[in-house]
Amino acid sequence: MAELGAIMVDYIGTARLRELMARTGTGRFIEELAGEIEADYRRWDDFEKSPRHAIHSSGGVIELMPTSDGRLYSFKYVNGHPKNTVKHLLTVTAFGVLADVATGYPLLLSEMTFVTALRTAAISALTARRMARPESRVMALIGNGAQSEFQAIAFHRMVGIRQLRLYDTDPQATSKLMRNLASLRLPDLEVTRCAGAADAVRGADIVTTATADKRNATILTPDMISPGMHLNAVGGDCPGKTELHADILRAKDVRIVVEFEPQARIEGEIQHLVALGEMDALGRVTELADVVRGRVPGRVNDREVTLFDSVGFALNDFSSLRYLQRLNAEQPDGGQRIDLIPELNDPKDLFVGLSREHAQERARVRRRRFA
Amino acid sequence: MAELGAIMVDYIGTARLRELMARTGTGRFIEELAGEIEADYRRWDDFEKSPRHAIHSSGGVIELMPTSDGRLYSFKYVNGHPKNTVKHLLTVTAFGVLADVATGYPLLLSEMTFVTALRTAAISALTARRMARPESRVMALIGNGAQSEFQAIAFHRMVGIRQLRLYDTDPQATSKLMRNLASLRLPDLEVTRCAGAADAVRGADIVTTATADKRNATILTPDMISPGMHLNAVGGDCPGKTELHADILRAKDVRIVVEFEPQARIEGEIQHLVALGEMDALGRVTELADVVRGRVPGRVNDREVTLFDSVGFALNDFSSLRYLQRLNAEQPDGGQRIDLIPELNDPKDLFVGLSREHAQERARVRRRRFA
Repeated sequence: MAELGAIMVDYIGTARLRELMARTGTGRFIEELAGEIEADYRRWDDFEKSPRHAIHSSGGVIELMPTSDGRLYSFKYVNGHPKNTVKHLLTVTAFGVLADVATGYPLLLSEMTFVTALRTAAISALTARRMARPESRVMALIGNGAQSEFQAIAFHRMVGIRQLRLYDTDPQATSKLMRNLASLRLPDLEVTRCAGAADAVRGADIVTTATADKRNATILTPDMISPGMHLNAVGGDCPGKTELHADILRAKDVRIVVEFEPQARIEGEIQHLVALGEMDALGRVTELADVVRGRVPGRVNDREVTLFDSVGFALNDFSSLRYLQRLNAEQPDGGQRIDLIPELNDPKDLFVGLSREHAQERARVRRRRFA
Repeated sequence: MAELGAIMVDYIGTARLRELMARTGTGRFIEELAGEIEADYRRWDDFEKSPRHAIHSSGGVIELMPTSDGRLYSFKYVNGHPKNTVKHLLTVTAFGVLADVATGYPLLLSEMTFVTALRTAAISALTARRMARPESRVMALIGNGAQSEFQAIAFHRMVGIRQLRLYDTDPQATSKLMRNLASLRLPDLEVTRCAGAADAVRGADIVTTATADKRNATILTPDMISPGMHLNAVGGDCPGKTELHADILRAKDVRIVVEFEPQARIEGEIQHLVALGEMDALGRVTELADVVRGRVPGRVNDREVTLFDSVGFALNDFSSLRYLQRLNAEQPDGGQRIDLIPELNDPKDLFVGLSREHAQERARVRRRRFA
């Protein structure tokens, strides 16, 4: 789609992403991406941070998530429409743009429906490496929908999980997850279907909840929690939508880690604490960046309960787009570009740039310059 | 670029926009677009409105401008980098997306560098039709850069301007504008090069200022203003960047019209009034939507001075994207689509959608369905 008279912007659509994934492998992609995200959280203060811009409607929400480190700028467009599955559509779709701060020109447009699931698994696993017990081998995975395979792969590869205990209110979702995991042929991963959430959690070192679509449906209650557990609460993520009983969050021995506290207070599990005015418990909330930078310790003993209250943050997408840009450049064949920005002989002469004659003239200038 | 296993999103790049413009004609495009914008301002209360999200850097600003009427959603990405011209790049580039609120799915991605100039001219002319004297025939056009041709065409076609008086601190910019206007062969348009801003304004019914790149450079002072003039202040548009002397805005007989007051107070000419605490004068500011809906009269006599303090608003882009979508659909050959959103057999099975086998299977399902 190379065009005359245009600055070409790199484009990663769904076909190109499949190609990049086929060459890189899902596990390696997630692990490398986790490295990028962690490196960016280490320089947390470099980033301009704001809660996302959301427009709500009766069917769902459309959000824009921008951030910048002063050199690169990124934003993600993401929707959340729980009733979409009835229409055979995805609940969450996304795309994003990486741009150059010095000129304001966009550099890359990428699909992010797949990438959002990949980067969510990446940050879950990198947080668990610091917050879960090092010898964690058993993970309960409650909610076996779109996110679940990515969580399973990330925790198997990065955290050392060797046994998965699955539960979903929809048995077909669990069957789908088991089928997909079987296709990966991981000989050291044992997968068990459980009869309920309490059954799945029994004996687990880590509990990942990745449910959606149910307003105020509580997945975990205090009686299910054992000392030393790490809870990875990925689902929910909306005002009024949580997965954990408030008493879990209130307990004095629970350490809560979030990505960006102002946003987590609106969308995360800790919205309970805000609603209840639990200032003591809110005082115990730590931002991941402080753990990554060593300002706050990770897990300190084998008995404390840790919780990653993950709602997703613009920085995770920034890291993802930069990683995608590199991966895309390393595998040049199959790369696509789109003619999103005009290129002009005279930047003050936008009008003439509208003519096709100018576009052809521009191409001649370019050929001369590189001759 | 049709792809398997993807929901295709309409794409209008620079080449496609040139094609649509060649078939429609610049004048007709602007006039039809003005109709769309006016229709949307008539239902002002239907729209979710917020000031744009901006990230500033030393070189410029990158902004996101979202809005929605509950049925469609749009946002524009736009940068402003005055020093870009030194690097032979555009000061302002833009692109935008139109999406379906019911599902959250994007429908159209379009270039908006050209479109921003077109829609700015459209709203300038539609406002002048209500605020300028009906017999206006002479327009001063100060600032002969990227916007100027579009303003000239819009005011010739929609307002009846038959004489243009041009001035720019850069004589080459004026030469470029004269050359481009000559290429349009408009027999009833007389074009004069003037020696300065005061010279250009002399005898003008309408004064359009479309300058940029100069912090606090005042273009118009009170002595240049005659009774009955309409001022169309298009340039500036940044905190600290204005074109009009504050005394023009303070004068009791000046009627000021803006697009969206909360944004104009930050970026527009009226930031002067905010800084000076001129509450009386701010009380005289009217939103265009109130004029369009007949809640506030347009021009009431031949002596009042009227000012359109235009900074651009998300709604103007919403109207533009919807108009482009229609135009694009009416001229199907040459239309392009991109594979931005995955299409899945089972929306809960995102993981399998990453495989190329699934994409092929999906294509078979689709063929069966439409067989």
